[in-house]
Amino acid sequence: MTRRKIYLEDIPLDEAWRRFIAAMESAGLWSPFPGEDVSLDEALGRVTARPVWAALSSPGYHASAMDGYAVRSADTLGATETAPVQLKLGEQAKYVDTGDPLPAWADAVIMIEHTQPIGDKAIEIQASVAPWTSVRPMGEDMVATELVLPANHVLKPVDLGAMAGCGHATVHVRRKPRVAIIPTGTELVTVEQVEQSGFKPGDIIEYNALVLTAQVREWGGEPERYPIVPDDYERIKTTVREAAASHDLVLVNAGSSAGSEDFTARVVQELGTLLVHGVAVRPGHPVILGTVERGAKDEERDGSASPHTPRPTLHVPIIGVPGYPVSCALTGEIFVEPILSRWLGLPPREKPKIQATITRKLLSPMGEDEWVRVTVGRVGERTVAAPLSRGAGVITSLVRADGIVRIPRFSEGVDAGQGVTVELYRDPSEIDRTIVHIGSHDLCLDLLAQFLAEMGRRLTSANAGSLGGLVALRRGEAHLAGSHLLDPQTGEYNVSYVKQYLSGVPVVLVTFVHRQQGLIVTAGNPKGIKGLADLARPDVRYVNRQRGAGTRILLDYRLGQLSIGPTQVRGYEREEYTHLAVAAAVQSGMADCGLGISAAARALGLDFIPLEQERYDLVIPRAHYESDLLRPLLDLICGPDLPQAVAALSGYDATHMGEVAAEI
Amino acid sequence: MTRRKIYLEDIPLDEAWRRFIAAMESAGLWSPFPGEDVSLDEALGRVTARPVWAALSSPGYHASAMDGYAVRSADTLGATETAPVQLKLGEQAKYVDTGDPLPAWADAVIMIEHTQPIGDKAIEIQASVAPWTSVRPMGEDMVATELVLPANHVLKPVDLGAMAGCGHATVHVRRKPRVAIIPTGTELVTVEQVEQSGFKPGDIIEYNALVLTAQVREWGGEPERYPIVPDDYERIKTTVREAAASHDLVLVNAGSSAGSEDFTARVVQELGTLLVHGVAVRPGHPVILGTVERGAKDEERDGSASPHTPRPTLHVPIIGVPGYPVSCALTGEIFVEPILSRWLGLPPREKPKIQATITRKLLSPMGEDEWVRVTVGRVGERTVAAPLSRGAGVITSLVRADGIVRIPRFSEGVDAGQGVTVELYRDPSEIDRTIVHIGSHDLCLDLLAQFLAEMGRRLTSANAGSLGGLVALRRGEAHLAGSHLLDPQTGEYNVSYVKQYLSGVPVVLVTFVHRQQGLIVTAGNPKGIKGLADLARPDVRYVNRQRGAGTRILLDYRLGQLSIGPTQVRGYEREEYTHLAVAAAVQSGMADCGLGISAAARALGLDFIPLEQERYDLVIPRAHYESDLLRPLLDLICGPDLPQAVAALSGYDATHMGEVAAEI
Repeated sequence: MTRRKIYLEDIPLDEAWRRFIAAMESAGLWSPFPGEDVSLDEALGRVTARPVWAALSSPGYHASAMDGYAVRSADTLGATETAPVQLKLGEQAKYVDTGDPLPAWADAVIMIEHTQPIGDKAIEIQASVAPWTSVRPMGEDMVATELVLPANHVLKPVDLGAMAGCGHATVHVRRKPRVAIIPTGTELVTVEQVEQSGFKPGDIIEYNALVLTAQVREWGGEPERYPIVPDDYERIKTTVREAAASHDLVLVNAGSSAGSEDFTARVVQELGTLLVHGVAVRPGHPVILGTVERGAKDEERDGSASPHTPRPTLHVPIIGVPGYPVSCALTGEIFVEPILSRWLGLPPREKPKIQATITRKLLSPMGEDEWVRVTVGRVGERTVAAPLSRGAGVITSLVRADGIVRIPRFSEGVDAGQGVTVELYRDPSEIDRTIVHIGSHDLCLDLLAQFLAEMGRRLTSANAGSLGGLVALRRGEAHLAGSHLLDPQTGEYNVSYVKQYLSGVPVVLVTFVHRQQGLIVTAGNPKGIKGLADLARPDVRYVNRQRGAGTRILLDYRLGQLSIGPTQVRGYEREEYTHLAVAAAVQSGMADCGLGISAAARALGLDFIPLEQERYDLVIPRAHYESDLLRPLLDLICGPDLPQAVAALSGYDATHMGEVAAEI
Repeated sequence: MTRRKIYLEDIPLDEAWRRFIAAMESAGLWSPFPGEDVSLDEALGRVTARPVWAALSSPGYHASAMDGYAVRSADTLGATETAPVQLKLGEQAKYVDTGDPLPAWADAVIMIEHTQPIGDKAIEIQASVAPWTSVRPMGEDMVATELVLPANHVLKPVDLGAMAGCGHATVHVRRKPRVAIIPTGTELVTVEQVEQSGFKPGDIIEYNALVLTAQVREWGGEPERYPIVPDDYERIKTTVREAAASHDLVLVNAGSSAGSEDFTARVVQELGTLLVHGVAVRPGHPVILGTVERGAKDEERDGSASPHTPRPTLHVPIIGVPGYPVSCALTGEIFVEPILSRWLGLPPREKPKIQATITRKLLSPMGEDEWVRVTVGRVGERTVAAPLSRGAGVITSLVRADGIVRIPRFSEGVDAGQGVTVELYRDPSEIDRTIVHIGSHDLCLDLLAQFLAEMGRRLTSANAGSLGGLVALRRGEAHLAGSHLLDPQTGEYNVSYVKQYLSGVPVVLVTFVHRQQGLIVTAGNPKGIKGLADLARPDVRYVNRQRGAGTRILLDYRLGQLSIGPTQVRGYEREEYTHLAVAAAVQSGMADCGLGISAAARALGLDFIPLEQERYDLVIPRAHYESDLLRPLLDLICGPDLPQAVAALSGYDATHMGEVAAEI
């Protein structure tokens, strides 16, 4: 049977929000929640639902501010070193510890250091004291009835202290919004199932609901994650109806597009009002916004009148969340977070913003708001933002992102070198201690990042190939570049390329590792591949590295020696960006072999045909080489712990790690 | 009996830390904790104890990136609009939803929109596709064995998704440090006891342990708050020994000084090693740092080998935390937080820093590091930091603080107008939306703050009196000043003072409220006070407002009319800074009466003798009056909601709220 596509709407983000909020407002859903009383022990991070006024004054009486003697200031008049005054214990002086109440007759305290005992019955003083000296008067901190905390305030540790100090054992805080998260999809499996029974092609591990659940929790809501519901219209409808009866917000994950098994829109339409089906954002297009009715029957079923039941409204907002992981997480940020903040009486969360220079040209569709994930670093005087994968399925692009650049509708994109605003996922101080690597990919960089983390540095690494790294250094976009560029003329690594690409920039070449390059081949080597000459065989499918990668340059050089042209190599045009990606292509059966390092073959249990050992250097402009930022990195590669850890990996030789190969 | 003081040490902060860390290092206590496995559901905010490598590739197979037909790209060669190609369903084309695996024979997907059904058996296409078009190749997101997350990483929502996606159902995270928090003090009562049985002079409501507990929780530890232990040497010792057996860190609150009932130092000495007794910091001087031994008997008693028992070390660090609330909370920040971060494998938390101009001269003792609490605002082009109360007992100074200024040892303080670094408790974006009020105190400002919060503005308010507010405006330290300065010459409010103090600054005077001034007297008015003339009576004790307060100026003016001199008024020299503080002084019996507003008398159940109605204006420089920042404030005072709320308060008249009284 053939199928047809139903097209989605393309509603601009602000228009989608306008419709959604208007619907929530008219249904009485767009206002802060009422409160509930919780004990102070449980109140950290909760939001006050009304102002807190002092029930008692603090201190609740005139209290001594010192260890010493409570006295009547009038009795001390005239005391000097030459004419000391004696005060009788009991009648004129009474010992008090810090915090003790003053006797009713006293109006000052003399520090114990400024008194002399005269036998057991009196003390002597050599100076008078003014009234109320060393006394914390009643109400010094808080006066009963005074405003202590405003409403809509997120409670910090000291706030709890202040509330207890003025007589409150409980506080009225906003009820946590209850959010139902319903994962749907017949193809979904839980990661627990996969751990137990193994992974089968076609399985999709459900984790969007896990991410949404954690987001809701982080944003102050009370999430409930439902079991996976298969793509069955009636079951989805029943689950949504039940969830709506006992929650303030319902999220249905996937099924929000317009494919043959995308049921969410129909369910919303049947149970309530479909407001928006398709928002002009990328990633995240197939978003559904609507409200569903809370049926009378469900109300009865829900029954209880505990403070945890949702408001007795007739409608519940519902969001159909797209299935691609990045789209899903961003839909949480864009649509779910502002609703929860509103209900908690808070302004929408704002990420810290910084200005940065974008490293790559980004084309973006005119009609859509696009969110681009970027890494951010400060290189010299500049703050640079490097775009990560824009694939909606690449969750690691969000894991690795330091922030997000929003390319608005009516913009066709940004040019390389243009200024952009980055909304940061991290504290700006973390950006200041970030070392930016762009260049060739090597597994040992991950090890280096681990060691650096313990020394208070972050290493971000973008795989642009050896040449790409040198270009990035020239543009001032990175602190260092990993490079393994063989010069066929001299047989030397990197030097001639650095002279050509970084002409005029003082650079230090530091050797990082020597490593084994060779052919990564299918386990068992069923095609009997022996060397690069086999790449010309019509039955051998090759997987290549991208232009500018040191491995690609090595391949082209060796193929040239063998007089094999690119068109003779089947799969030459299929490019991957890392050694592991090449290995994965071989493992998946997409190709029979690819050039790469032995560690990648070993990692995926593939065979490896060694061809040559190559030197992999870190190319570091001298200005960065001498900076405080890079000091821990240089300390590490000079050993002994890092070289030892690298030497333990197969396929690597760390003997020369840290040696300066050249200063250019 | 007389008593003598034992003096504390004055150990510089860095030296105290050095000793403490050295002792922890030599006892094996200064390293990150080992890990425990938790399910991903419970992992949000936890810290990875080792790197996370992908267990599976994601996608785990070549997956369709679109709803469409899986095809062999070779079969599509040559297809054009004029020469379409037909593909047989089953053999040459298979329908796939987004995410479905490709059949083994297929290597590309054609979007459904680009196909035409030909009956039930075939589709037609009008363009060829390249291999791997619209396919998410196996491992596109993560390749098995690849590093997904580093160690010592705080887990975010998307991290949980990535871990599940590459086959992990659990994650190895650092065990939470277990911290015992022991409040000691015979005078302590719980706030629950006070709520039930009422408050007696001498009672001190225990809340330091509550604050420390919340701090530990916020910083990733697992706190255990002990019941209050009375000042009994043996009971404290027993409790500390037991706590040490089952916790990683012991905090003993109060008893850390050197008074007659300060037992902590002796307990530490007896159970282990007292390293430091007294650190040269303010507030927070009487800090104890040490380690206590974990007795063999206690190990047996503890017994269990669950992952929640602390490391089998022989020593446990202990901190004697000072009893003053601000000292206590800052001791948490200075000493407890870095230890927890170390154990969790994280760098110490850093607060966001900004540069600001300090508004007041601060003298600070040469030998001590001092932490000064400040409010922060951006006024025009400047960022200004206004010091709050420096009293170690004033917890509200921490509640209200936007940040902390550290005045280092070997500095005698800072001058007004000097630049300082503020470590912020808030996000800098909150500072940008803060309206700074300095001036006369009025209870309606709290109401205004509430209303403003809902419009995305914070109002910070410092009580400096009416004249103090005008001076602050002249110095560019505030956006507006509340003022009720009566000019005896003209009988007019504020105008002549503004002309004198803000000469040359264009200013708008906006009326806020009219309010009742009068004498706040003891409930029942036992001294039969009838008016200001009674202040000259020798049996009447007065409590005054500070110089520069509008109420003080009013008093002096009226006393002048009555020919009563300051020396004739008993208590004239006793100054308070707010109406409520004056009322509290009367309530406490410290004074018989004070001049103030009726709302303050009513709040504390005191009698009130009305004298006159006065106008209270907001003085706003025109530059701020016209700024976006103040727009919501001006909208609010133009009503109707705020005037209505103010009118409901007794003693206030809001009829003229929002009227422009003068433009100067």
